[in-house]
Amino acid sequence: MERLAMMVLAMLLPPITALSQEDGVGIARSYRERHGAQIIRDYADLLAIPNVASDSVGIWRNAEFLRAALTGRGVRAELLTLPGAPPVVYGEISVPGASRTLGLYVHYDGQPVDPSRWRHAPWTPVLYTRAMDRGGKLRPMPTDGEQIDPEWRIYARSAGDDKVPLGALLPVLRAFQEAGVSPTSNVKFFFEGEEEAGSRHLGQYFKTYGERLADIDLWLLLDGPVHQSGRPLITFGVRGVTGMEITVYGPVRPLHSGHYGNWAPVPGQLLATLLASMKDNDGTVRIAGFYDTVEPIGESERAALSRLPAYDEELKRELGLARTEGEPETLAERLLLPSLTIRGLQSGNVGSITRNVIPATATVALGVRLVKGNDPDKMLDLIEAHIMAQGYHIVRDEPDHETRLRYPRIAKVTRRKGYPAARTAMDLPIARDVVAAAERATSQQLVVMPALGGSLPLYLFTERLGRPALIVPVANHDDNQHAADENVRIGNLWYAIDLYGALLTMP
Amino acid sequence: MERLAMMVLAMLLPPITALSQEDGVGIARSYRERHGAQIIRDYADLLAIPNVASDSVGIWRNAEFLRAALTGRGVRAELLTLPGAPPVVYGEISVPGASRTLGLYVHYDGQPVDPSRWRHAPWTPVLYTRAMDRGGKLRPMPTDGEQIDPEWRIYARSAGDDKVPLGALLPVLRAFQEAGVSPTSNVKFFFEGEEEAGSRHLGQYFKTYGERLADIDLWLLLDGPVHQSGRPLITFGVRGVTGMEITVYGPVRPLHSGHYGNWAPVPGQLLATLLASMKDNDGTVRIAGFYDTVEPIGESERAALSRLPAYDEELKRELGLARTEGEPETLAERLLLPSLTIRGLQSGNVGSITRNVIPATATVALGVRLVKGNDPDKMLDLIEAHIMAQGYHIVRDEPDHETRLRYPRIAKVTRRKGYPAARTAMDLPIARDVVAAAERATSQQLVVMPALGGSLPLYLFTERLGRPALIVPVANHDDNQHAADENVRIGNLWYAIDLYGALLTMP
Repeated sequence: MERLAMMVLAMLLPPITALSQEDGVGIARSYRERHGAQIIRDYADLLAIPNVASDSVGIWRNAEFLRAALTGRGVRAELLTLPGAPPVVYGEISVPGASRTLGLYVHYDGQPVDPSRWRHAPWTPVLYTRAMDRGGKLRPMPTDGEQIDPEWRIYARSAGDDKVPLGALLPVLRAFQEAGVSPTSNVKFFFEGEEEAGSRHLGQYFKTYGERLADIDLWLLLDGPVHQSGRPLITFGVRGVTGMEITVYGPVRPLHSGHYGNWAPVPGQLLATLLASMKDNDGTVRIAGFYDTVEPIGESERAALSRLPAYDEELKRELGLARTEGEPETLAERLLLPSLTIRGLQSGNVGSITRNVIPATATVALGVRLVKGNDPDKMLDLIEAHIMAQGYHIVRDEPDHETRLRYPRIAKVTRRKGYPAARTAMDLPIARDVVAAAERATSQQLVVMPALGGSLPLYLFTERLGRPALIVPVANHDDNQHAADENVRIGNLWYAIDLYGALLTMP
Repeated sequence: MERLAMMVLAMLLPPITALSQEDGVGIARSYRERHGAQIIRDYADLLAIPNVASDSVGIWRNAEFLRAALTGRGVRAELLTLPGAPPVVYGEISVPGASRTLGLYVHYDGQPVDPSRWRHAPWTPVLYTRAMDRGGKLRPMPTDGEQIDPEWRIYARSAGDDKVPLGALLPVLRAFQEAGVSPTSNVKFFFEGEEEAGSRHLGQYFKTYGERLADIDLWLLLDGPVHQSGRPLITFGVRGVTGMEITVYGPVRPLHSGHYGNWAPVPGQLLATLLASMKDNDGTVRIAGFYDTVEPIGESERAALSRLPAYDEELKRELGLARTEGEPETLAERLLLPSLTIRGLQSGNVGSITRNVIPATATVALGVRLVKGNDPDKMLDLIEAHIMAQGYHIVRDEPDHETRLRYPRIAKVTRRKGYPAARTAMDLPIARDVVAAAERATSQQLVVMPALGGSLPLYLFTERLGRPALIVPVANHDDNQHAADENVRIGNLWYAIDLYGALLTMP
């Protein structure tokens, strides 16, 4: 049955006429003002469908729901499938005479849940008068015509990450349908069902169904929260990610620190010395070549950086930091460089269970974030070259006794699979149009970031498909994404509706 | 009743005549050859009494057993007590005309047990035909006249650590009593009951009962295993011990390593740099003054070192080490210096539970071993001065938010209570007599060590009581001390009997 579903053919769009961008925002906003209660209830219906990527029954229910919803709004929609993968909900709006095609990416799956940590069941959406932790009270879903407070919040898994674009797109499409107008661009919808499980099949989907996606001029990734300041945000890139685990070796078994201390090599000391050689105290990485492949940023990126709200001092106060790495460079500037971070350190024990031993091993989990120009594998090669330059023999498995007796310094390196950064140029005309549309949709000052510090497989869009891609988030920054009591603020759902009205009618 | 027990008065020793040292060894050995089976069965009776320091019923049963055993062998014996402390079994042999007084220290308590790890119940002594892990078979206790194999082993808690000196002393005293001879020295017996619980009351016992101990010329600590090579051992000192735990701070909470990596300080990196500054790669501590107070060794110590069996290469092979700290200095030489050891390192997580975070803290457990001349507190002061010289502000409790915002580098230092090293000069005539006596008792080459790497509160004897003290072990080195299936090799019990025969008749 599932195999058949993918072949459902889309309905044809009714004939509609083009319109101005002011009209686009107006149509979306007017529809929302008249149907706000219905929009919230409809969104709650979507949130009520369990959506963990590994729950194929729930995932397929979501996909069918979305395909039917698109079809009902005049979109030619189908389910794309691959063996063993959640389906992609794919849809098309073809506009006669349109000169560009937008790709709208959303993911409909959500993070796994620990229900014991949630105040309400994760897939039983509830409405609160404001955030729970700021005195919000449970209230019923609104009835038609009732006054809607933008501070209300819907609590449910994926309310913020990442069903909220769907909760806004569907009413906007209905508004356009009702008004008998069409977008000014061709639109292709691509709703993924396993982003939270690592987008394991995304590359294969792009390969298998690449023909459908070939004419997309710009991808808009509708995902993530807005800026911590609460302002709307558009981001032109993300860092890539990779890493490695390094274990260094002392004696084959833990030794009595009295009987052998000052004679047996201490793995924690060896590791500390190795790590200290990799990065200096002001945060500069000392690994040869670490910064060599960084692609320089352009004029537009520098201008965007200079326009960012000053936020570092507030962040330092909040995080209890007297000094940051690379001061006086700002966080936004530092995110344009690759980073080397000790995510974990372990040797023997500390605290009440410390023992009087020289431990047998010491291990570090190193995280590496990459920027445009950095190849994940080559960056790990540089780190390995540095380790060897410190006198280490590198092994891939536990060293045997003969290896131990042969090499005074042994490091077991386990490389992590990573992926590269991606960044779209800020001076691209089509990207400027998106920024202008977002500015039109909000009265707040838009934050435009050259790159986020975090990682998404954005490179699949920019490298595999070879198309520019922007991240256009709408969720509130305090939406508890990935955690318990995930939520979306109604005001952010309203912002999304205005924004999509503007994006679908870009001149 | 317990309180009354301490006041029991000792019996008077019958008149006995002095004898030569050859006679001493001969009497002890002859008695053992005639009564070997009985000696083993009697020792098993002592091992059958549970002896964890916190088990006051068992501890008092041991103490009473030993007091009675001494009394029965003509020793004036009593129980010394302090409130809340296991009793000390104290005894005296006064020899008319003797020119010296030996203090014999033994501890009768044992390490706590995890019975599930033992093949037999820990306080149900059993006899094996050799070590269990080398094909030994369980066999009955020997009957009188039966041939005794020195490879047999008795398995029970404290069989090696530290009841074996008692299992040998009691028959030696019986042999002397039977032969109607007396030792050539006055002897004072001091059997402690909480060594494995940290000798918490030993200093107070010395203070309260110091008058009884004032005339002791030399303490012999009958404790520990012989050399790893299996040869008999006498040790002139031990290292002292102290340590500290250091925690360094990053952000107040773990941060996303993507969103903040390259900007937020990484506590693991700070700690690695701090630790790398403390010790270099060849094992030399770089903390100013760390070696300044080391008391130089003398001619006798240097001579003893040169006579030690070459053992390092074998040890390195066994432990899988291609290089050791301070090569080409030997283990025995390196134990004459203070050591700085990373016993534990912890920050975030490694392995499968690694998370993409910059952890909030990193912690190290540092162990410090001390040699003669080092004051425990002053050594920790040196380490703290070094930490401050690296730019750290030292705190004793978790830093509050204001402190975090004020100091870029914060280290919380928790000092461990320690005690100093102790070493008796090897050229002391009375000490030379002991070495000569031990050489007389064995056909193997005696190993004489200036100092052990491990730590015992030997300083209480040498500093508080102000008397020289030697450690004279007899147990086999593979006795599983502190672990399950603790045992003593019968041949080592026999060595102890010969040795004590010689020590009690030193010219």
